[in-house]
Amino acid sequence: MHAIVVESADQLTWLEVPDVSPQTGEVLIEVSAAGVNRADLLQAAGKYSPPPGASEILGMEVSGTIAAVGDDVTGWSVGQPVCALLAGGGYAEFVAVPAGQVMPVPDTVELRHAAGLPEVACTVWSNLVMTAHLSAGQLVLIHGGASGVGTHAIQVARALRATVAVTAGSVTKLDLCRELGAEVTIAYRDEDFVERVRAETGGAGADVILDIMGAAYLDRNVDALATGGRLIVIGMQGGTKAELNLGKLIGKRASVVGTALRGRPVTGRGSKSAIVEEVTANVWPMIAEGGVRPVIGAEFPIAQARAAHQLLASGEVSGKVLLRVAD
Amino acid sequence: MHAIVVESADQLTWLEVPDVSPQTGEVLIEVSAAGVNRADLLQAAGKYSPPPGASEILGMEVSGTIAAVGDDVTGWSVGQPVCALLAGGGYAEFVAVPAGQVMPVPDTVELRHAAGLPEVACTVWSNLVMTAHLSAGQLVLIHGGASGVGTHAIQVARALRATVAVTAGSVTKLDLCRELGAEVTIAYRDEDFVERVRAETGGAGADVILDIMGAAYLDRNVDALATGGRLIVIGMQGGTKAELNLGKLIGKRASVVGTALRGRPVTGRGSKSAIVEEVTANVWPMIAEGGVRPVIGAEFPIAQARAAHQLLASGEVSGKVLLRVAD
Repeated sequence: MHAIVVESADQLTWLEVPDVSPQTGEVLIEVSAAGVNRADLLQAAGKYSPPPGASEILGMEVSGTIAAVGDDVTGWSVGQPVCALLAGGGYAEFVAVPAGQVMPVPDTVELRHAAGLPEVACTVWSNLVMTAHLSAGQLVLIHGGASGVGTHAIQVARALRATVAVTAGSVTKLDLCRELGAEVTIAYRDEDFVERVRAETGGAGADVILDIMGAAYLDRNVDALATGGRLIVIGMQGGTKAELNLGKLIGKRASVVGTALRGRPVTGRGSKSAIVEEVTANVWPMIAEGGVRPVIGAEFPIAQARAAHQLLASGEVSGKVLLRVAD
Repeated sequence: MHAIVVESADQLTWLEVPDVSPQTGEVLIEVSAAGVNRADLLQAAGKYSPPPGASEILGMEVSGTIAAVGDDVTGWSVGQPVCALLAGGGYAEFVAVPAGQVMPVPDTVELRHAAGLPEVACTVWSNLVMTAHLSAGQLVLIHGGASGVGTHAIQVARALRATVAVTAGSVTKLDLCRELGAEVTIAYRDEDFVERVRAETGGAGADVILDIMGAAYLDRNVDALATGGRLIVIGMQGGTKAELNLGKLIGKRASVVGTALRGRPVTGRGSKSAIVEEVTANVWPMIAEGGVRPVIGAEFPIAQARAAHQLLASGEVSGKVLLRVAD
């Protein structure tokens, strides 16, 4: 089969590589498209090594068709259109994945576009619901509202009847966020999000914040939290280390949570399979009912993976970036 | 009636003050004893002002006998021995308190000693169980294991079938912790608690940490956490501001939570009444069965409140410090 090989830092080449086959409990997917994630950029730059046992090939999510089924797999059969959350290996013609990380393609979604769902859907559900317990009537502040995760988070939060505030860097992005359901749109270059969130909540603040900036926003995020608020940090685009004022945290009975999908175990409590199961049960119906849709910002042929990475790194794209592997 | 009046910073005098009476929904308690808390020391030093509407009188917990019952109170009657969590007013002959913050005195506990239960029981249950979801088989690290909160936390955690590690500053204190059920006792002056917790858990770390040191321990507490671990900060004896490494937090999918009892509302979700209800339902049976007992380190007559404060501030006491108001 063919796959993208990192020949040297950021040199991404579509080359012949050894075939993969499904192990016990795994499904083999013939890949239609792969989603691009920031973790792929780190890995392509040589700044992330996959854990022992995981594929060296980039790619944490795909859509495609089941090509083979390993031993002890029930509920999946050859020919089914699916998408999947991966530990790696998605930038390839075929990928093998534990059956618990496979999801059906929602009826209303094109097979290729489904490659943009697993990471955002699992990230958003595991964080907003399973970790932060966002509920109807609460306000969630989503930083980077026009990103892949952001565009999905807006829609899911609205489907949960929460109030959505977002930050983004351009009028175009803020317009997209509003169209997806965000009620409070904050141009972070021009406005202080802390003041704006307080103003919009009568001084109370945000019940939940979904953050991708890390250190750069830590103190202001704590300032923007309501009593009992939960700050969920899923990215560190603004650095890793910052001063935390525990007095503010105690005064608000607030929490700071760091989370990631990639290091989670395949099965068990808090595992990828547990998240995938909840996503299929809860988010897929939202998609079927039309309240949530994939937001695809750009598609590239897999051979142009490097260009896709550059676009994502530039910040000049809204929604997900996809790589087409087969037509 | 008489109460302790703060005449100037740390000048605590037993003086005649206006009588109190129960408002609608309140119970009037004739105080037998009052518990001493670190928040009282801050307030006596002029570093804490009670919120609007709360008593200016020190004292966040008492035991005593119900002397009168306000309108709309059911389930309590004059003459009943009780203890209560207060917003203030405990260093006095009488105190009025919302009925939802009143608890019966457990059968096996002396009336006076029950004054040492409300703060520790509500603090420990709200943090270890309602916030951190400590469960059987998990390891909890309790800093200041010989403190009032620490001695109670050890016993409750053991009753929940968790494994208990503690830090403390002397052999005497560590012996008390061991006697109460702590399996891992760490002399923090001589040993690195991070290394010790890792060694005791095969490198995994603590599932829950109950911390009173704040800034001074923040980074090392994060180091000592297990994957999915919860750091609960309830005190800031080591300062309020410290660098937080979000990369470590994300790598462990861990959380830092700040909490306090005092600012919580009287009723509703996460309120004092909600906590008191859970404590009465869950901790009082542990006391009745003998698994949990009040640990009283010292008792003073109420007129010697200043000496009681000095003893607590010195760190030279284990368990709770009580003030006797009536014999």
